[in-house]
Amino acid sequence: MGRGREGAGRGRPSRPVLSAGLIAREALAMIDTEGADAFSLPRLAGRLGVKAASLYNHLDGRAAVIESVRRLVVEEIDVSVFAVLPWPDALAAWARSYRDAFARHPHAIDLLVTTTIGSPAMLAMYESVVEALARGGWPPGRLVTVLTSVESFVLGSALDLVAPPPMIDPSGRAPRVPALAAALHAAPEHDKAARAEQAFASGLQALVRGLVAQLAEVRTSDAAGRQPG
Amino acid sequence: MGRGREGAGRGRPSRPVLSAGLIAREALAMIDTEGADAFSLPRLAGRLGVKAASLYNHLDGRAAVIESVRRLVVEEIDVSVFAVLPWPDALAAWARSYRDAFARHPHAIDLLVTTTIGSPAMLAMYESVVEALARGGWPPGRLVTVLTSVESFVLGSALDLVAPPPMIDPSGRAPRVPALAAALHAAPEHDKAARAEQAFASGLQALVRGLVAQLAEVRTSDAAGRQPG
Repeated sequence: MGRGREGAGRGRPSRPVLSAGLIAREALAMIDTEGADAFSLPRLAGRLGVKAASLYNHLDGRAAVIESVRRLVVEEIDVSVFAVLPWPDALAAWARSYRDAFARHPHAIDLLVTTTIGSPAMLAMYESVVEALARGGWPPGRLVTVLTSVESFVLGSALDLVAPPPMIDPSGRAPRVPALAAALHAAPEHDKAARAEQAFASGLQALVRGLVAQLAEVRTSDAAGRQPG
Repeated sequence: MGRGREGAGRGRPSRPVLSAGLIAREALAMIDTEGADAFSLPRLAGRLGVKAASLYNHLDGRAAVIESVRRLVVEEIDVSVFAVLPWPDALAAWARSYRDAFARHPHAIDLLVTTTIGSPAMLAMYESVVEALARGGWPPGRLVTVLTSVESFVLGSALDLVAPPPMIDPSGRAPRVPALAAALHAAPEHDKAARAEQAFASGLQALVRGLVAQLAEVRTSDAAGRQPG
């Protein structure tokens, strides 16, 4: 029987063929809309209109599905910059891309940061960062430190972006915090997202700038250490 | 009947007198041990051995109890430094103290960062920071930006401290991420807490250093702007 004879699925919902990629995308969509806590394989199967057992034909259980979701999010983070830009610019571009991925998938943050054994997708990303820092001249013992400090800033900034804006209760509290009230009033951005963006951009610039200064010192002291005593 | 006649509560558990302070301390202890999600007034009352209604004689409902917990945590954060140190040193000392408070009360992080109307305790802390930055010469429109960027780094670092350590699956994944494996091996600190501390200290130093450089630029361009055209 030819496909043409049946028509294009007339009378039954047309459904894409189940695959590991489709499962991962649906799992991420589910986490994006319902939160990481709501995620379960039976509910994911329900969204896909299949039996939970069918998922196992493509991905080996919950941990594998979660890892495939991590991979999707990590794929949105640009590590290609490390191959083409000097480390300070690449680090800044990576941090921005990392934070933007978090911002698009705030509920996935928990999945990315709470992993007992390193996720292969995350490890591959770290590998790119560490490699570039080493090429940039950072000593081996400082690589994880630099990576972690920038990642902490990215993570905190992503949380700032999704947190409710700091508001001063209008019912008479402003007089108690006059400097803060004036500062909030003087801030050029009044929209929460624009303020978060400003804080991220400015803090990232400061952080990377400080790291450049730190590396220059490390190298100077290394050079001094190599002088004949 | 005099107190002496009754003895020191012999035959019944001796229990401190219920007060707003006691309720707040017990609520924080409960959140520290059981997590923020487990917190409820009936369970808090149970821990204190009183009826939930008794709590209302001291604190006006759940929001008031939560605010009293926030106040306890914020009281552990040292803002006195802003009165005695130059702003870069004060900012660094405050950030460290803030992160240490988070580290002692990781489950309280959610309470501190997810507040729709500014918590009075948090607002008072922000007031100290913003005031000191303004005295240090930061223009009014940049105060909230600087505050937020440092707070994001503190928050991300606190999460890094409580997150599981990044581990490379020993079963054969190290060869795929050789630079990362070497960097982890070369890091002087092998204990998770020591590594988190190193990343925090180093990143904080870089961030504050970058902010000092940013402020110098802002002042230079301000001064240039004031030159007669």
